[in-house]
Parts: sequence; structure tokens; C-alpha cells
Amino acid sequence: MIWIEEIAKYEGKEVEIHGWLYNRRSSGKIHFLTIRDGTGIIQGIVLKDEISPDTFELVDRISQESSIIARGKVKKDDRAPGGYELEIKGILLVHSAEPYPISKKSHGTDFLLSNRHLWIRSRRQYAILRIRGEVTFAIQEFFNSKGFTRLDAPIFTPSACEGTTTLFEVPYFDNKAYLSQSGQLYAEAGCMALGKVYTFGPTFRAEKSKTRRHLTEFWQIEPEIAYANLDDIMKLAENFTTYIIQKVLNKRKEELDILERDTKPLELIKPPFPRITYQEAINLLDKQNKVPKISWGNDFGAPQETYISQQFKLPVFIHRYPAECKAFYMKRDPKDPRLALCVDMIASEEYGEIIGGSRREDELAVLEQRLKEFNIPKESNEWYLDLRRYGSVPHSGFGLGLERLLAWICKSSHIREMIPFPRTIDRISP
Amino acid sequence: MIWIEEIAKYEGKEVEIHGWLYNRRSSGKIHFLTIRDGTGIIQGIVLKDEISPDTFELVDRISQESSIIARGKVKKDDRAPGGYELEIKGILLVHSAEPYPISKKSHGTDFLLSNRHLWIRSRRQYAILRIRGEVTFAIQEFFNSKGFTRLDAPIFTPSACEGTTTLFEVPYFDNKAYLSQSGQLYAEAGCMALGKVYTFGPTFRAEKSKTRRHLTEFWQIEPEIAYANLDDIMKLAENFTTYIIQKVLNKRKEELDILERDTKPLELIKPPFPRITYQEAINLLDKQNKVPKISWGNDFGAPQETYISQQFKLPVFIHRYPAECKAFYMKRDPKDPRLALCVDMIASEEYGEIIGGSRREDELAVLEQRLKEFNIPKESNEWYLDLRRYGSVPHSGFGLGLERLLAWICKSSHIREMIPFPRTIDRISP
Repeated sequence: MIWIEEIAKYEGKEVEIHGWLYNRRSSGKIHFLTIRDGTGIIQGIVLKDEISPDTFELVDRISQESSIIARGKVKKDDRAPGGYELEIKGILLVHSAEPYPISKKSHGTDFLLSNRHLWIRSRRQYAILRIRGEVTFAIQEFFNSKGFTRLDAPIFTPSACEGTTTLFEVPYFDNKAYLSQSGQLYAEAGCMALGKVYTFGPTFRAEKSKTRRHLTEFWQIEPEIAYANLDDIMKLAENFTTYIIQKVLNKRKEELDILERDTKPLELIKPPFPRITYQEAINLLDKQNKVPKISWGNDFGAPQETYISQQFKLPVFIHRYPAECKAFYMKRDPKDPRLALCVDMIASEEYGEIIGGSRREDELAVLEQRLKEFNIPKESNEWYLDLRRYGSVPHSGFGLGLERLLAWICKSSHIREMIPFPRTIDRISP
Repeated sequence: MIWIEEIAKYEGKEVEIHGWLYNRRSSGKIHFLTIRDGTGIIQGIVLKDEISPDTFELVDRISQESSIIARGKVKKDDRAPGGYELEIKGILLVHSAEPYPISKKSHGTDFLLSNRHLWIRSRRQYAILRIRGEVTFAIQEFFNSKGFTRLDAPIFTPSACEGTTTLFEVPYFDNKAYLSQSGQLYAEAGCMALGKVYTFGPTFRAEKSKTRRHLTEFWQIEPEIAYANLDDIMKLAENFTTYIIQKVLNKRKEELDILERDTKPLELIKPPFPRITYQEAINLLDKQNKVPKISWGNDFGAPQETYISQQFKLPVFIHRYPAECKAFYMKRDPKDPRLALCVDMIASEEYGEIIGGSRREDELAVLEQRLKEFNIPKESNEWYLDLRRYGSVPHSGFGLGLERLLAWICKSSHIREMIPFPRTIDRISP
């Protein structure tokens, strides 16, 4: 047997494909079968004159999504999707599928999500998951080539990192634990031991908002680097983003075609990305009347991010936000202590924030003061304070939301398509 | 600045290293500094005659784990650990560490685990985490090169996969969810959509046993392949294991040296691994008197696995266990329905089971019967049964416990060293 993905190697040869019937069109003397095997799709031709009458008649009865083994000769055909066709010599029906619930007519979202285990067989979902696979590998390839060590942050944590309102609490034997909202604090400990680290894992937020941009379970990648400053991580973030986009453009062209993704905006992406300060972003907003302006000290919402992103062809870095709208661990700008040394990267094509990073506060006394201001208990963060007691160093890092990055690459308006089995406030199955 | 890992490229040049003071020996006119930067360790020499008196005196006062920037010339020296030395021209003290709690004297395990955020800076823990990083990448490289798509299984699940006694239950808004014990059922859905998939993520078991082999949070890798049988996954497992071991031997030699790992047993590892049936394993045990024998129908415990592993230099596959001691989803052997088409891979050097796999039951009626026998509610598994309604195919897969694999590679007796922040019944911090 061979996989459809490698069909080009077998031109002119007889092969066996193990897959499923995706679609069939028939005329009196010919069946056109679309066969999928999870690595690609190929058109199979069954000619009445070249096959036994029993087999020809069998093919007429094979239902959608039945599993089949097809034997035939590989023929180059530029008109066929994928560029090759299979002249079928024999078909074995492995399992005859019951009437398949997902048809070509449009289904409601809830129905599709309830059938997610089957929906992922559809071309669009298949293409998205193949792109997700490519992106997850490219991310690790990038960091690996730059000497980062992957550091798996724990999921069970004793305390909150990003605010307590969205914490999932878990009964833990006679105690309780919280599901990690971010691996960052652990990545900070990691970079003091391993220099350059990145986390790659699921994180959890009990998001009550039913928006298109929120999941309760989502994957984050969080690099953290000892002795790095804000400029270093902006450079890292733009090289990182470019590497991933290039990899997908090179290796997942077919999948982008299935999604009908216009790749021109992605092809433009290369460093350097524009960098503007929070203040410059405020000024941009002040000059227009399409979206509500923002007064100094407030964070941008989706409308503002969209407007700002429309002013650039590339992703844009907005840096140095007012410290009051950002997290406790961010270092203040020594040139203007009202500001945090932080950066958000807003994707192009109106996809909003996908990366958020900062230099971390490295002075013990200042960090202790911040914990107080943010009402965060000191006891459970003593270990984190230790990082400032024993060889504190300047250090910086960022967090990337995998599903948001993918929504942009795939140009999808629904983040729930970007993960195999999405979890939201009203869905934990299948 | 440069990273110590790439020091060889800078022989004879003056460089700057950003790191921490790991150790110091001093005589009247010379300081030997061991400097670590998270990518390696280098010895720095400070000669009284070649540096300002202030700097020489400063070096004398730098405490362990203080962060320092060292400038100096790179000199090849075969006697030095790593093969290079730094002739120091200048030292900048970035942060003077408080008296460091971890010294060379031996500390209790609980103390070290409570200081895990600092303990990971020690050479042994550093080496283990670098090897872990290499292994996580090698695993994905292997599957990627073989055309597998990574499929992230969900963490929040509606029901149990591996028995209900070790389930973590999480209040989920007005409902409840369970933390995933295994991604396998989702990988099965995935392989029907994508042909060959693997999961790579944390899984959870509320293990009450305080053994050296159990964590409540551990990482599993679970490949699943459509149209694959038991032989196929044994071949995959041996190639996979060999690939990872070779990669670590080639790329993490220095780290294996730090662990004083005798690499000869690892160098032997290449396919094919011996394959014995459960019955043959029983026969082996019957011939000896060192460990308790097992009567047919029971699973092996650690003493039996150890004895069996001692009979081979390579990891050994034990296949076709009695179905009654294995999971509900395993297919029976058509040649002897008392047996499951399953396999455990027992590591060499007495490291016990690290891989468990099987062919999955693909017939709807049989699987429904199994659910009944195992008292598993059918409703929450309807989606899983759907995989047998719509184009069911023979399929097989296995699960690998990452930390157990690492314990073997590192020859450690404690699985808790194999993960950055271990979680056990009595520990969820730091």
C-alpha cells in the first residue's frame, strides 16, 4: 500500500490505496470516485469495460465514508485535483458506512461541533489540521535551531498567574489546585537554568465570553530568554513569525488552496515589522472617526486593533503600554515609569493580537511592591521571588496563542476550527 | 555576547559570556571560576597579575549563583571540562546572590523538590532537562519524517478512558469535566481523518501510590495509524525507540557524561527487538525461582518485568496478553479469542514497561458488548462507536510515557527528576 501524499513517486505503476470514499459521480459507463486516505485526495476512475461486472455494480452501491482498498494504475493528469488519477483495477469494500450524517448541504455549527469526530474528515477541517501540524512542528524546529531548550511547564499550579476570575479550580486529593493559565513564571525559572527556553502546552481559562476568539482550553508557546531585553524579543518574534509563515507557504500549499486562502498577504511577511509605541497608536486613533478613540491608560479592544492593523501590510508591534493596564510582572520603562516594557504583536489582515511579551521585573523590592499593588498573595509566589534573590538577570519573553496564529494563517473567523476538539463554556464533548 | 554551547567557534577570540557563577576555587594569585549560562559550563581563569586589583578582589567576593558578565579570551585546553577555558579580562557583577540554599552537601528530596525552581540549575538536573528537550524534539522529528500529523487531544473530557479510580474531576461552569488520562480515543478519530496521527501532551491520573514510577501529571505520546496491525506498530515502536536513543547519543553526549551514564547498553539498541508472547513470558518465569511466578490471566508486576528484561540485552516486546487483564478497546486475537492483540515494550536495564499498544476493536457489535462487560456507559462513548459505524478500518497504535522513557535513557531511579516541575499526591508546588 502507498499513501496518496507520495503518489507522484508511483507514476505509471500499479498501487494500492487504503482509504475512504469521499464522493462519487457516475454516468452509465464510468464512475468517478474521490478517495481520501488522510494524507491526500485522489480521483479514481472505474470504467465499465475494464472491470468485472460485479465490481462495477458494487462501486455503484458504496456509500459515502465507507472504507475501501483501491488497486489501480497511477496516471498523471493535470486536470485532476492533486495532478494524478488512479485507473482502478479492483476495489475491496472494507466496511460499508451507515448513511453519513454530514452532507454537502450546510449544517449548523452546533451539529458540526457535536460531530467533530467526523467533521474533521471534511476537506476544509482536514486542511486546517494538516496546517496546524506543520505549524506546531515549525515552531519547535525554529526554537531548536536557535538553541532553545523546550521546558514543559506544569498544568497543576498552586496559584494564579493571569488574574483569578478565569481560574479553573481542581479538587486535588485533600487539597486544591488550579489549571495553568500560562507557563510563563515557570519559563522564567527555566531560563535561569537553561538560558533560552520555551514552553509548548495547553493552558486554561474559564472564559465566560462566547466570542469567536475564546476557548477554555488553548495551546500557548512561551519563549523566555535570560539577559534579553524588549528589542531582543521583538526581533525574535518577527523572525519566528516569518519562519512559520514561510514553512506553511512552502509545505502546505495544497492545504492553503483547499481553504482558498489568498497567500499574497502572507508572502509579503518578512522582517522588520513596523514598531509603534502605545502613544503613537493612540495618535493614529485620534486622527480617525471610524472606531472609538481610546484615552491614555486604557487597553485597545478589537475595533482599535483592527483599525491599527489596517494601517500596515505587515504585523505591527505596539510597545510600551501604560503599566496600569498590564500584568504585575512587567518591568517599568526607566525612561518613563508610567510605561511597561511590553509589546503586543498585532497580526495583519485584521487578526488582532497574537503575541504578547515583555521584559520582566528583575528587582526583588520592586516586584514585592507590585504583588502588593495587584493584591497577589506573596506566600505562593516566594519561589518566583527567589529568581530575584539568587542571581537575578534582565530577562524577557513572549507568549503566542497557537489557535489565534492559525486562525490568521488559515484566514478563518472561528478559532474553534483551529483545534481538533474545541472546548468552550458550553462544550466539552465529544 | 555568545553562548557557551558555541564556544568552539570562538577559539582565540575575545568573547563575552552572560551567566552565573557556579563554583569558585581560589589560590593567592589565581581564581578558577566555573561559569554556567544554561547552555554549558566553562572554566574561567582570573590571574592577579593580568587584571586590576579591584576586579581581582571583587571576584573573591562573588557569591554562588550570582549573575555575572565575563569578558575574556577563549583558549583550547583539553584538561578543561568542555575542552575550552576563558582567560578572563573583566568581570561585571550583575546581581549578587543571597546565600544560596542548595550546596554540595546532600539535601533531602523534599527540600530539593521544594526548591525545584533553583534545583534545576544544578548540573545533573540541567543535563536531564537538556536530554528531555532533545527527546521531545526527536520524537516529533521522527513522526514528522514519516508523514504523521500531530493531533492535540483535548484535556477536558466528558468521560474516562482508563478506568474511573484515577480520574481528576473538574467543576466546569455548571457542569463537570474530567482531565484526560490518555488521548488515544481522540487519536483513533484522528487517524480516520488524517491517516497517521500522534498526540503529544500532558495526561493526568490521580495516582495515590507514592512509587518512584508515578506522577499525577505526565506526558504521553500516542501514535495511531489507520489500516495498521499489531506487527506494524511493533516495527514502528522499535524504529521509534532506536531513533530517539541514537539522537540522544549523538547530540547529548556531554549531558550523558554529566549523568555518568554508561552508554554501552544504549549503543546496542537497534531493530529488531525480541518478541515473545505472554505465554512465552509465563514459561520464562516458570523456569526460575527468583521472583514470584504468575498464573495465566494475571498481568506482570515490576518484579516479573524486571526478571524478563534481564533475559535480554534489548528492549523486549511481550504480545498477546489475556484480554481480561487489558483495556476494553483492544481487539481479540481471531486465532485465540482469550487473547488481546496487544503489546507491551519492556525497556532494557530493568526499566519496565515504557510502551503499551494494541490493535483496536473495529467491529461495532463487539465493541458495544465490551462496553457492557466493562460497565462503561454507552451514551458518552457514542462518538467513539461512530468510528465503527462510518467506514470502520483495522487500526492500531501505542502510548509512550515520556518520563519513563527518560528515566531509562538517563538511568535514573526517580521519575520525578524527569519533568521540570513534578506533581505527585503530596506536591503541586512550586
